[in-house]
Amino acid sequence: MPTPDLLARPHHDGSALYVDRAAPAPGERVTVRVRVPHGHDIDQMHVRQVTDGEPEFSAARITSRTATDTWWSADVVCHNPVTSYRFIMSGPTDGYLWLNAAGLSRRDVPDVFDFRLTTFGLAPDWARHGVVYQVFPDRFAKAGDRPAPEWAEPADWSDPVDTRRGHIGAQWYGGDLAGVELHLDHLERLGVTTLYLTPVFPARSNHRYDAATFDAVDPVLGGDEAFASLVRAAHARGLRVLGDITTNHTGVTHDWFIAASADPAAPQRDHYFFDEQGDYEKWLGVSSLPKLNHASPTLREELFDRPEAPVRRWLAGDSGLDGWRVDVANMTGRLRDHDVNHEVAAHMRATVVDAKPDAYLVGEHAHDHYLDASGEGWHGVMNYSGFTRPVWTWLRDKDFAPSFLGNPLMVPRLGGPDVVDTMTEFNAMVPWSTRRANFNLVGSHDTTRVRTLVGADTRQVGVALTLVMAMPGIPMITYGDEIGMEGAFAEDGRRPMPWNESDWDSQIFDDAQQLVAARRDSAALRDGGLRWVRVEDDTITFLREVAGESVLVHVARDAGTSLELDEKDLPGIGGGRLLAGRGISADGSGIRVETNGPGFALWLWKDGGRHGEAL
Amino acid sequence: MPTPDLLARPHHDGSALYVDRAAPAPGERVTVRVRVPHGHDIDQMHVRQVTDGEPEFSAARITSRTATDTWWSADVVCHNPVTSYRFIMSGPTDGYLWLNAAGLSRRDVPDVFDFRLTTFGLAPDWARHGVVYQVFPDRFAKAGDRPAPEWAEPADWSDPVDTRRGHIGAQWYGGDLAGVELHLDHLERLGVTTLYLTPVFPARSNHRYDAATFDAVDPVLGGDEAFASLVRAAHARGLRVLGDITTNHTGVTHDWFIAASADPAAPQRDHYFFDEQGDYEKWLGVSSLPKLNHASPTLREELFDRPEAPVRRWLAGDSGLDGWRVDVANMTGRLRDHDVNHEVAAHMRATVVDAKPDAYLVGEHAHDHYLDASGEGWHGVMNYSGFTRPVWTWLRDKDFAPSFLGNPLMVPRLGGPDVVDTMTEFNAMVPWSTRRANFNLVGSHDTTRVRTLVGADTRQVGVALTLVMAMPGIPMITYGDEIGMEGAFAEDGRRPMPWNESDWDSQIFDDAQQLVAARRDSAALRDGGLRWVRVEDDTITFLREVAGESVLVHVARDAGTSLELDEKDLPGIGGGRLLAGRGISADGSGIRVETNGPGFALWLWKDGGRHGEAL
Repeated sequence: MPTPDLLARPHHDGSALYVDRAAPAPGERVTVRVRVPHGHDIDQMHVRQVTDGEPEFSAARITSRTATDTWWSADVVCHNPVTSYRFIMSGPTDGYLWLNAAGLSRRDVPDVFDFRLTTFGLAPDWARHGVVYQVFPDRFAKAGDRPAPEWAEPADWSDPVDTRRGHIGAQWYGGDLAGVELHLDHLERLGVTTLYLTPVFPARSNHRYDAATFDAVDPVLGGDEAFASLVRAAHARGLRVLGDITTNHTGVTHDWFIAASADPAAPQRDHYFFDEQGDYEKWLGVSSLPKLNHASPTLREELFDRPEAPVRRWLAGDSGLDGWRVDVANMTGRLRDHDVNHEVAAHMRATVVDAKPDAYLVGEHAHDHYLDASGEGWHGVMNYSGFTRPVWTWLRDKDFAPSFLGNPLMVPRLGGPDVVDTMTEFNAMVPWSTRRANFNLVGSHDTTRVRTLVGADTRQVGVALTLVMAMPGIPMITYGDEIGMEGAFAEDGRRPMPWNESDWDSQIFDDAQQLVAARRDSAALRDGGLRWVRVEDDTITFLREVAGESVLVHVARDAGTSLELDEKDLPGIGGGRLLAGRGISADGSGIRVETNGPGFALWLWKDGGRHGEAL
Repeated sequence: MPTPDLLARPHHDGSALYVDRAAPAPGERVTVRVRVPHGHDIDQMHVRQVTDGEPEFSAARITSRTATDTWWSADVVCHNPVTSYRFIMSGPTDGYLWLNAAGLSRRDVPDVFDFRLTTFGLAPDWARHGVVYQVFPDRFAKAGDRPAPEWAEPADWSDPVDTRRGHIGAQWYGGDLAGVELHLDHLERLGVTTLYLTPVFPARSNHRYDAATFDAVDPVLGGDEAFASLVRAAHARGLRVLGDITTNHTGVTHDWFIAASADPAAPQRDHYFFDEQGDYEKWLGVSSLPKLNHASPTLREELFDRPEAPVRRWLAGDSGLDGWRVDVANMTGRLRDHDVNHEVAAHMRATVVDAKPDAYLVGEHAHDHYLDASGEGWHGVMNYSGFTRPVWTWLRDKDFAPSFLGNPLMVPRLGGPDVVDTMTEFNAMVPWSTRRANFNLVGSHDTTRVRTLVGADTRQVGVALTLVMAMPGIPMITYGDEIGMEGAFAEDGRRPMPWNESDWDSQIFDDAQQLVAARRDSAALRDGGLRWVRVEDDTITFLREVAGESVLVHVARDAGTSLELDEKDLPGIGGGRLLAGRGISADGSGIRVETNGPGFALWLWKDGGRHGEAL
């Protein structure tokens, strides 16, 4: 059996097999390693890092040889807050190879795909090692009846979603926080570890992204008491809780905006962008969503710095959140020639960490986040560009072309190589520490539901969830995806959660449980490096590896050619076990992967020393 | 004759055929156009621009059809100082194509290669339309004898360069500014329009990048009077003059550093980075080159703001420079967690434009300049990464592997497709306005000489100079390259210019004259868009196009297959003429390009309306 081409390539990534400290201090020296599978004729290697804007080179040396690989090591000094680096290697013939996070190149390539180390520290362990479950409070569960708020169009739990313009935001099912608390056992049963609540502040819509204040929980959801009770109950079960805050704008009914509109001399006036005619800047022109002006010191004081500032106070104590998801993070602090986005993100990070040292911060970012995701501000972002969209292009039904957030042309259907190239490029542009702190999500309250995306063959939901759980990043499941809830677009998918299990797709739920458990049980899936093994149009196979444990992940959107991997390439693989899914069998000398249709298989084995750890 | 594949692709670039205003004002609406050669089944197209961090789409419409192309137009609003945009198009089948500055892609690609419009304005016409000639004053010409300065090791004009460590910077040939003035006729004969002088400030080395002051011209070069006389004489001939200033560091003998070292309380102390032990930061650890601290307001005042500040005063009046080349621009203002590089660049740009409204500013930048070359600071940079290195990889001799600025592995030799891909990627990352303001250079005082690079077949020097003159950017020739001066590495190439013409390579000089003239005579070469026509290992063919004039540029490093282009693809081409070089013949229906070995050919034709100008 020949070694698959991809597996035969020299490799480096930001994981512990290749980088000896994940969170270096400023000025610290970090040892970085490259795995060179036998068969390459490499006689010298150097690392190039960029220091104060200038490339500098240091020689690498061979520090280990195993049955499969030669390991080279070099040092990178974290001179700047973000230090980019790449490797260059050559053999006895003319020419060289660069190795960066996008792969190998014999020609010069831009720095944008360089590996990166940062001195900003890591997202907290609980976040990186957990699995997030997103809940839209109006639609998840309802503990009691309340009078409808004035803006609302009440609906029964069994009513269909009203997606007509003008009704989308007003339809009100009356889900509440006590309802969430009552169903925490569902989260535990599924195996997730972090509850992420979309906004709970009072507003005039079911989604509440038009906050009327950041100082109280909406009484319609049960108010501050229900919130504290829910968070305490979650904590008691070992669950963490994330809130959702809109730093880009407020609603027009926000107390700051009301004061600012009423009086040009009000201290809140400069929280917003008013012009001389009294008009104000809005989010994408929506008049109910006035844009916040983060150049204003008084806004920063209100939002971040005062002891009762919302970003700070809602994190306090055992009934406090464990972090924030930041809405419209990509536009926050940006308007025309004014751009304080990175300052605001860093300010918020410092505030959050000051309020709760192990808090986690994730920004909404629906497209290329390269320049905004160094890790100085948000620990990570919702990785729509480097995860969601490529997965969609692979798994979308042939006859269902979904739209994605404003693009007038529908998401295409492409084969594995295009999908993997897209993932590789977008994720190569951020530090490994950011990638690990990004959300892997195949859908959210803002998108098509995965069940609808994949079409008739529901086995593909499990395929999608395998990628969510098994790729580097923090898995996020939006409520209902685990039971096969449908929805052709964002609002259509915001359906009330059915609590009668006969309405669930039990195969999807079984797959989801199995995959969440696999993620939680495997150090390689949580912390491992990533090597591609084989990529074909209909199947994708990759490895996640830490010292002592490897997981082979195989996903198929359709029947693919079989794959054999032997002990020569991956010592110990034949002695592994199926961690989840089906279709992998072992004999004494290796394994055979066979898929006859959509499916997934995760194969775990323990090994020792095969990565040249002993230098 | 089939249309070459590259020519059949949809195309957009930043030139006037595709963008209706090159220097938009903030908020201005710009019409952008896409050429779609017939044969593509495109039924909708949109432009995507990023506004305040968020992508937004606008529909394009068909505005013209010609014999060869359908033209689509859309509007981009320059909402932010830098507005990135790309196109998306689709036909009747599933899927779409993105078009960005790196080309076409059916899968999603990062924003880094998006087209970009900026509101920073353009480099002055004289700079963009001119040709630069770099002079190293100690080595260009000597008008008279002077006593050697104390640091110098005097040499005779006919002596070889002493490249021994410890002597490189001290060897002194005694070239002077009066010598340059005496030889301005050489610049005119060659046809160049801009004289760029490497530093003329007093220092303790022949290169003078270790300035002892910025307030006087070195008496060893003839002092302030010789400088004023030279600049006036150049201006009288219609030549412009660029100076060279080191913003990253000074010499240890600089009056600021002497004052700062002598007294910790001196106002100049904070011009540098002194630590508590009195040690100071240095450029790459070189103790004679203390690094400047641009966070210091007093340094900024000294360097930029006071009426007699050097950046300002040397531009004054008719005996003043027309702009600056900025040494070590990439490291300026960068140290550890301190990075004010972009602020310094913008400050310097504002200063320079204030002192002389049509001044030009170019930064030294020897690697990826994506993030530093938006055009807000330097108009452009010395384009080593997107021009010099790719040209070297194509033209270097098979048996001579040159080193490039610190890279321990030698520049490889690669074929045309790798070279063009490298050029495309690096140049795709900057606005077209920056690309046009960058130096195209195949060598400088800091590199191997092109004559040595190409090896025995000197015809390749003309090939290199064709690329210098015919690619978008500002051509720069370093003194001596036009006569075939040799040099295996930077200092080895800093040879005294021979003024006995029998020492010149007359074929190279003829080629250089012819190519400089072609550049100056052709609007398409100066201002045109760029389309690749055919790229093979040994030949590269491209088009430069403005309304009314096209130039086909063909370069060969070795014999290549012939190429035929007809009126169907490029109407009017058969009626053109050879602008420079040899190997293109016309008949009634088109042209035939034939190269039997290294060579170049530029074919110019006039046309009207074939780009769908009339909407």
